Amino acid sequence: MQTQDIDYRADAVNLRGYLAFDETSAAPRPGVLVFHEGLGFGDFVMARARMLAELGYVAFAADMFGDRRNARNLTEVAKLVGHLRSQPETLRGRGRAALAALAALPQVDASRLAAIGFCFGGSVVLELAREGADPVVSFHGMLTTKMPAQPGRVKAGVLVLTGADDPLAPPDQVAAFENEMRAAGARDWQVVSYGNTLHGFTNPAADGSMMRTAQYDAEADRRSWAAMRDFFEEML
Amino acid sequence: MQTQDIDYRADAVNLRGYLAFDETSAAPRPGVLVFHEGLGFGDFVMARARMLAELGYVAFAADMFGDRRNARNLTEVAKLVGHLRSQPETLRGRGRAALAALAALPQVDASRLAAIGFCFGGSVVLELAREGADPVVSFHGMLTTKMPAQPGRVKAGVLVLTGADDPLAPPDQVAAFENEMRAAGARDWQVVSYGNTLHGFTNPAADGSMMRTAQYDAEADRRSWAAMRDFFEEML
Repeated sequence: MQTQDIDYRADAVNLRGYLAFDETSAAPRPGVLVFHEGLGFGDFVMARARMLAELGYVAFAADMFGDRRNARNLTEVAKLVGHLRSQPETLRGRGRAALAALAALPQVDASRLAAIGFCFGGSVVLELAREGADPVVSFHGMLTTKMPAQPGRVKAGVLVLTGADDPLAPPDQVAAFENEMRAAGARDWQVVSYGNTLHGFTNPAADGSMMRTAQYDAEADRRSWAAMRDFFEEML
Repeated sequence: MQTQDIDYRADAVNLRGYLAFDETSAAPRPGVLVFHEGLGFGDFVMARARMLAELGYVAFAADMFGDRRNARNLTEVAKLVGHLRSQPETLRGRGRAALAALAALPQVDASRLAAIGFCFGGSVVLELAREGADPVVSFHGMLTTKMPAQPGRVKAGVLVLTGADDPLAPPDQVAAFENEMRAAGARDWQVVSYGNTLHGFTNPAADGSMMRTAQYDAEADRRSWAAMRDFFEEML
């Protein structure tokens, strides 16, 4: 497997992503974006990019905060995430910049692109889905938006994987998301709710120390990754 | 594959189930029950039993109404289903009788039993789960009950596969089911909601003619069967 850093830009912001792919394969392959959690770009999304490369995709972990900035505590998370979530156009533009960087790579079949995201990154892929990107998979992502999907804009292929006890995606927000999809006439969306599961269930580093309600769950981690894998086998 | 009818009883009711298994396999295998829809025992559940046998299970399609009675119209469905749903103890007893008939078969490893059900049959497997049977999978099943699960009774392994627009399992009933599982302290439950999907999505005969809101959906059918398959591979 080959990995490398790739610099790209959105507006005036320097972004540094991370590419992972199987360099022994010659044919262009589907490309999959990986969007990081509220803590920022780090080991976790790079590991997920390598896991996607092992599945045969060209994987690109995007940098959404710029210069791979990381939050050191929940206050900084709230500031970085809140800044982008309050400006959906800026957020979407930054997501699109990652999509363009991935699509431009010679290893990538640009007609077959997908995106996954975790926590804050889940909200990023849903914002992209709201303007027509697909397929996308959100892992314990935030489901609300300031710019709900317009009728006809959402294409096929939205998969939401959420913890039933995630305080960042409580039942009323899950219901609101489902109603948003209905109202937009989205043809193909799914929501999987894992019982007895909190926020951050895919990340082994989520041990409740920074946020009590963020807890790794090996079962939900395995099941959600398998759900994504099956979904992409079907869609890509 | 070998198939045969098997007679069994619950109280004074004659029940005639349908067994399907790979007769070339010598070792005892996990057994899986199949519970029929509100229309009653018929081709559909027998076909599903054979599909389970192809996956390597000993499959037993249960007869819940007795003498393989079938409903000819929605009024008869309501009567047959309502009769059992209003008496959960009777319904559960009839489900347990099928479980016992399956467990007694020499081909079956009685320590590894599971149950799936469709529509009314989905409510049957959830009633069994409420008293400790697991794993179970409900396909477009009714989620309400007159006897909610008591704390500690639900074991691991409840998978609910439901159409997001199924009028027999509307969002408020999905939410109520999730709350029932939370209140009971159920450790391992999942709900998958298929967007843009009505009732009866697994049955090609559901064409809206008998009930406008029962409609086959090839995509949800395939996805839900794959979800069950993966779940049983994990659990059995």
